[in-house]
Amino acid sequence: MQQLPGRHFLQIPGPTNTPLPILAAIAKPTIDHRGPEFAELGLEVLAGIRSVFKTANPVVIYPTSGTGAWEAALVNTLSPGDRLLMFETGWFSTLWSKMTKSLGFEADIIKGDWRSGVDADLLEARLREDKAHSYKAVAVVHNETSTGVTSNIAAVRRAIDRAGHPALLLVDTISSLGSIDYRHDEWGVDVTVGGSQKGLMLPPGLSFNAISDKALAASRTSRFPRAFLGWEEMLSANVKGFFPYTPSTNLLQGLKVALEMLHAEGLDQVFARHARAAQATRAAVRHWGFEIQCSNEAEYSSTLTAVRLPVGHSADALRHEILERANMSLGNGLGPLADRLFRIGHLGDFNNLTVTATLSGIEMGLKARGIPHSPGGVDAAMEALAGNLPPAALAAE
Amino acid sequence: MQQLPGRHFLQIPGPTNTPLPILAAIAKPTIDHRGPEFAELGLEVLAGIRSVFKTANPVVIYPTSGTGAWEAALVNTLSPGDRLLMFETGWFSTLWSKMTKSLGFEADIIKGDWRSGVDADLLEARLREDKAHSYKAVAVVHNETSTGVTSNIAAVRRAIDRAGHPALLLVDTISSLGSIDYRHDEWGVDVTVGGSQKGLMLPPGLSFNAISDKALAASRTSRFPRAFLGWEEMLSANVKGFFPYTPSTNLLQGLKVALEMLHAEGLDQVFARHARAAQATRAAVRHWGFEIQCSNEAEYSSTLTAVRLPVGHSADALRHEILERANMSLGNGLGPLADRLFRIGHLGDFNNLTVTATLSGIEMGLKARGIPHSPGGVDAAMEALAGNLPPAALAAE
Amino acid sequence: MQQLPGRHFLQIPGPTNTPLPILAAIAKPTIDHRGPEFAELGLEVLAGIRSVFKTANPVVIYPTSGTGAWEAALVNTLSPGDRLLMFETGWFSTLWSKMTKSLGFEADIIKGDWRSGVDADLLEARLREDKAHSYKAVAVVHNETSTGVTSNIAAVRRAIDRAGHPALLLVDTISSLGSIDYRHDEWGVDVTVGGSQKGLMLPPGLSFNAISDKALAASRTSRFPRAFLGWEEMLSANVKGFFPYTPSTNLLQGLKVALEMLHAEGLDQVFARHARAAQATRAAVRHWGFEIQCSNEAEYSSTLTAVRLPVGHSADALRHEILERANMSLGNGLGPLADRLFRIGHLGDFNNLTVTATLSGIEMGLKARGIPHSPGGVDAAMEALAGNLPPAALAAE
Amino acid sequence: MQQLPGRHFLQIPGPTNTPLPILAAIAKPTIDHRGPEFAELGLEVLAGIRSVFKTANPVVIYPTSGTGAWEAALVNTLSPGDRLLMFETGWFSTLWSKMTKSLGFEADIIKGDWRSGVDADLLEARLREDKAHSYKAVAVVHNETSTGVTSNIAAVRRAIDRAGHPALLLVDTISSLGSIDYRHDEWGVDVTVGGSQKGLMLPPGLSFNAISDKALAASRTSRFPRAFLGWEEMLSANVKGFFPYTPSTNLLQGLKVALEMLHAEGLDQVFARHARAAQATRAAVRHWGFEIQCSNEAEYSSTLTAVRLPVGHSADALRHEILERANMSLGNGLGPLADRLFRIGHLGDFNNLTVTATLSGIEMGLKARGIPHSPGGVDAAMEALAGNLPPAALAAE
Repeated sequence: MQQLPGRHFLQIPGPTNTPLPILAAIAKPTIDHRGPEFAELGLEVLAGIRSVFKTANPVVIYPTSGTGAWEAALVNTLSPGDRLLMFETGWFSTLWSKMTKSLGFEADIIKGDWRSGVDADLLEARLREDKAHSYKAVAVVHNETSTGVTSNIAAVRRAIDRAGHPALLLVDTISSLGSIDYRHDEWGVDVTVGGSQKGLMLPPGLSFNAISDKALAASRTSRFPRAFLGWEEMLSANVKGFFPYTPSTNLLQGLKVALEMLHAEGLDQVFARHARAAQATRAAVRHWGFEIQCSNEAEYSSTLTAVRLPVGHSADALRHEILERANMSLGNGLGPLADRLFRIGHLGDFNNLTVTATLSGIEMGLKARGIPHSPGGVDAAMEALAGNLPPAALAAE
Repeated sequence: MQQLPGRHFLQIPGPTNTPLPILAAIAKPTIDHRGPEFAELGLEVLAGIRSVFKTANPVVIYPTSGTGAWEAALVNTLSPGDRLLMFETGWFSTLWSKMTKSLGFEADIIKGDWRSGVDADLLEARLREDKAHSYKAVAVVHNETSTGVTSNIAAVRRAIDRAGHPALLLVDTISSLGSIDYRHDEWGVDVTVGGSQKGLMLPPGLSFNAISDKALAASRTSRFPRAFLGWEEMLSANVKGFFPYTPSTNLLQGLKVALEMLHAEGLDQVFARHARAAQATRAAVRHWGFEIQCSNEAEYSSTLTAVRLPVGHSADALRHEILERANMSLGNGLGPLADRLFRIGHLGDFNNLTVTATLSGIEMGLKARGIPHSPGGVDAAMEALAGNLPPAALAAE
Repeated sequence: MQQLPGRHFLQIPGPTNTPLPILAAIAKPTIDHRGPEFAELGLEVLAGIRSVFKTANPVVIYPTSGTGAWEAALVNTLSPGDRLLMFETGWFSTLWSKMTKSLGFEADIIKGDWRSGVDADLLEARLREDKAHSYKAVAVVHNETSTGVTSNIAAVRRAIDRAGHPALLLVDTISSLGSIDYRHDEWGVDVTVGGSQKGLMLPPGLSFNAISDKALAASRTSRFPRAFLGWEEMLSANVKGFFPYTPSTNLLQGLKVALEMLHAEGLDQVFARHARAAQATRAAVRHWGFEIQCSNEAEYSSTLTAVRLPVGHSADALRHEILERANMSLGNGLGPLADRLFRIGHLGDFNNLTVTATLSGIEMGLKARGIPHSPGGVDAAMEALAGNLPPAALAAE
Repeated sequence: MQQLPGRHFLQIPGPTNTPLPILAAIAKPTIDHRGPEFAELGLEVLAGIRSVFKTANPVVIYPTSGTGAWEAALVNTLSPGDRLLMFETGWFSTLWSKMTKSLGFEADIIKGDWRSGVDADLLEARLREDKAHSYKAVAVVHNETSTGVTSNIAAVRRAIDRAGHPALLLVDTISSLGSIDYRHDEWGVDVTVGGSQKGLMLPPGLSFNAISDKALAASRTSRFPRAFLGWEEMLSANVKGFFPYTPSTNLLQGLKVALEMLHAEGLDQVFARHARAAQATRAAVRHWGFEIQCSNEAEYSSTLTAVRLPVGHSADALRHEILERANMSLGNGLGPLADRLFRIGHLGDFNNLTVTATLSGIEMGLKARGIPHSPGGVDAAMEALAGNLPPAALAAE
């Protein structure tokens, strides 16, 4: 393919635009993963990653993409044939439940409309019905990347507690970690699944399991056959900063820098920056006259916005046009939403100009494709950005 | 200084945003500048750079920033006390004439208003008056970086010819080379001065002299004391791809990639891309209701636009606000224009989204500073960009 | 840790010294893994990697370190409780058999002395005894990284054939792939396991399964619960160059360059370069008067040499001394060999001077630690290198 | 050219092997050279570079290679027709005196044998003869890169003082700065000329003038026409961390890291490391049976060793052989020494293994070319390195 001039705008909802200092860190020479320099690095990132999950408990770092950590959350805590209660929020919750079945677990799926998040009341009702406590785990997605819906995990926790159900709570936070406030300990999550290529601003290749004491206890009695993804050896080697097998050394070098960057900006500032971008993006989408896939305002995602096109217009043709004209990648509709919507990623390393540039590329694409819309979306976004506390002011607080 | 999130937008009129493949090339290990691998590199870039100047003659590459090449153009062709005729188009033409005087030459300056380019008729008149042919050289700036005015060098050539004057023609093309069509041979320029950090998309550190046969002949009789910047040894060593002293090896490695990129896109496409960006930028500026510093439509620069703020508003305060809020650098007003105007760079490695992002940052800054303007400048720019042939279509032609 | 001056010599038997062009490639911005640019990349590396395995069949690329590919070879082809016949060649064959048991398979281990490779006659005898064909697979390590012993896989194949046994043949080639000749198709291997961080010169993070038709057929009837590592979805997505979940995009960018480099040098030249380095290293070790861990000349590894120290001398203390003095990492003794031997990696991206530098660092370390040895090992190595066809001559053939 | 495997060993006496952190720093995006982030950088490097020259006075940083700083030292302090006394120590002192003449100064050259340094007694005698004080400057090279001879600048200073001569003292320290102890203030040097591409471990492109008060005073009365290289505007802009014209921003970003690295190791440790490498190199050369170009032990250079081959053997053929076989560049003989000797660079970023690797490459080359020598040079070097205080011990002091 010919290289287009200028920077590519990678505005899919992850992988995100990796900052140059992180790219520089992963391009440093690989070091001996059994030597003292590595031990320092290992201890630093294993400690640092906890703060992003807001946990005092161990976080396991896998040399895999996020799908590996999904599987790890299941195979470490459950036994063959165990039942789970899952909630269908979109494509990724569906993939996770398919994986669950592939691994031989029984997954009861609470149907969803792909436009809203986990219904905690419904969940509570289903758990109350399960008087035999046959569900060993509840598994939900915090931020559904296919729809731009963020579920309320604190409410999920309360629902489980109100039902007095002992099920483990497994949560996928892949596309929200480091971008939207997430509290592994406070919310009583048992296993949180994360990945490197979204809010952590790294390339794909690392994934995470944050583990509660209860989950750790469960792993000791779990009878599922496992090896590569087993927690035990991992946690044991991690104590001294090492790994039981060759880790993704260079990505860990990048993780160190990513954690430094997140902490230099401050997690709260990072979350606010994402919220501002999301608000501005929705302002533009509404101005254009399009529907936002997420139908519940309280569940709007801060990291991506899924936009429904009017019937008769191809979202994929629009994305293709924008890629060719504006050198920008947008997310496609997944599963039943294919070609119906496109997804705008506003997560990771970005600023106000990334947001307006992204929206301008879409608006020019809409025009080029002849898709009816009300021009001026970028103005609406600028209005929204201006109405918010700017970075400079925030930094001065 | 704290690092702001997201990409910095370096929208000064140079140095420009260096593409990552060029940064990667200059970060390759330094090679032996007397070895066979270097000879290959040297021959390649020395040949390749000629195409950008549109010359079949030698182009000298200095390991200096552009100011070195300004001096080289003078000291190689003139003798102590020689007279030059120069044209004041703005800050950089003035700096060049100051240098000329510092070096002991006599420079007659045709006054200008800093809002238009070289007046070829005036020039012709002055040359006709010089019946004794006391002017040894005419020195003008092709693209005045302080004002965003591009002078018509073909017209300058014709003026000199019509006057039948033997003066050498020296032209500074630092901020237009590789961005605006320039024809060293066709326009009969004797020495063209270029730099690496603008349209060539490199960091600063390389500069150029394209040399006509007449200039070369002049250098053989020139009595100005020179060594470091002397053409003779340089041209002699260049024949085999080498340099008489240690060259800026790593920047030459980058130059190789820069030339490949320019030729892959095609120079005509590159020029058209710059022209589109300039037109869109002016559409925004006019929409806001501000005056463009260049008062002559035929002389609008494709690489930068200088924008005059209404009296009473500080351009520097605006630029500072934008730097803090939008992580974008804009050019300042220089000399008498300090704080009166700001300059928008749209040159080098950019695309449509860079243009709209830049303009959105300015519009948000105007609002934040309370500078009266008509909102909607980005829309006007998008309109202008859309009204032009898009990159995809161009590429398909 | 303080940074020591000069280049670090990473002479462990992997991860290896990553060449700068590969580091530059993995530091390029992450691209959209569902876009057209990625599809081109995916198709290119999926095709290219086959040549390194010498197979016309598909090779699956996992976003995991090698341990993931070990597990994948098992869980895709076997069913719970299946029996395997494995051969103990050292630490890594032992780890693989432990994994096999952790996953619930039954593994019969043919004991070994950690100083020689797979005994094909013994293997044949064991298979002949298994008249019920209870062994579903034979799993061996091609190049045992803990001992520096390379087993003869063609002989293993012949042994299985002579025994008329239908077991699958699974082979770990992690530390030989791309460094020592390996022929997946010709040797009738069913699943070959590889990794990125050795002869492929990449950082850790990618692993491979080369798959025979027979293995593919077995995967269709295998009843082992699997998802993340399942071949089916992977092979299906790979057809168009894509992956069923987010791949390690940046490492794939690096893999493209690694394959280009291997093919530019020529695989046969690469193998010869490794053989020369190994021979020179052994010449030095013998000159010093130390024992080579591999006791069978026909099985000397081309990628590493494990060196036994005289009793009473600590190999780890020596390695520590060398790290501090010479800024070089060497491999440690594993399992029962801990502190008894050290391992010299001579694989990946290196040349003659890397070999002599490595050996000089060891010889200076031996002296510093007062370990009795005959000085002059580097001379012996130089003699061995000189006695071989040099690169220049090879290149000219 | 085809890329040879493994790291290239750039063992010419500069440019030197640039450490990866410095390459990474120069590959960071160019920043606005008129913005606040640049001012911080400018102030930091302008202050930091003084410590390397051991001066409390200003040091000017030019965006040129070293030749520019040679010229700057002359044109800022002298007036047309001024006389200088120079000392011929080799090729570079000769080039500098040629430049001096090209610029129209009168240079009296004290002839030398290219095997020893400045003879301070001879210098004193010549200055005593100059009762009219017609010499405005004495110009000498501290470390003659063509011969590997380091002159005693303190002795030069004393000679001038004993003669009671008011001449300025100009010293070229290009290939010693940051590698061999140098004391601009203590030795009363008036202008010291440095470059980036040797001990400072940067690519070529920056050069330096350290300036005494006396030199500064001289510059105010100097009548030599100058502009680009003029100190006045430079020093004035430097006060706030800026430059009068576009500086080599990216190399300055690298300089910041280079200074951090030098100070982290400690200048005294750096000098000791160079001295050790030089001693080990000479031990090898003597063992081989070759003559060292520097005939005076007290003047051996710590940064390079020039080795004379027996008559009848071509040094260039040897260098070519080594480049092809060992992927290593060595320095050639210059001027009358062409093909007679080769030069081994041991400066910048290196360690013990770089030294032994370099020497092993030479020894293998000698054998390949059939040049009679006593094998075992690397052993002699290892002996010399071991007899010195090792880095670990130094670091612990």
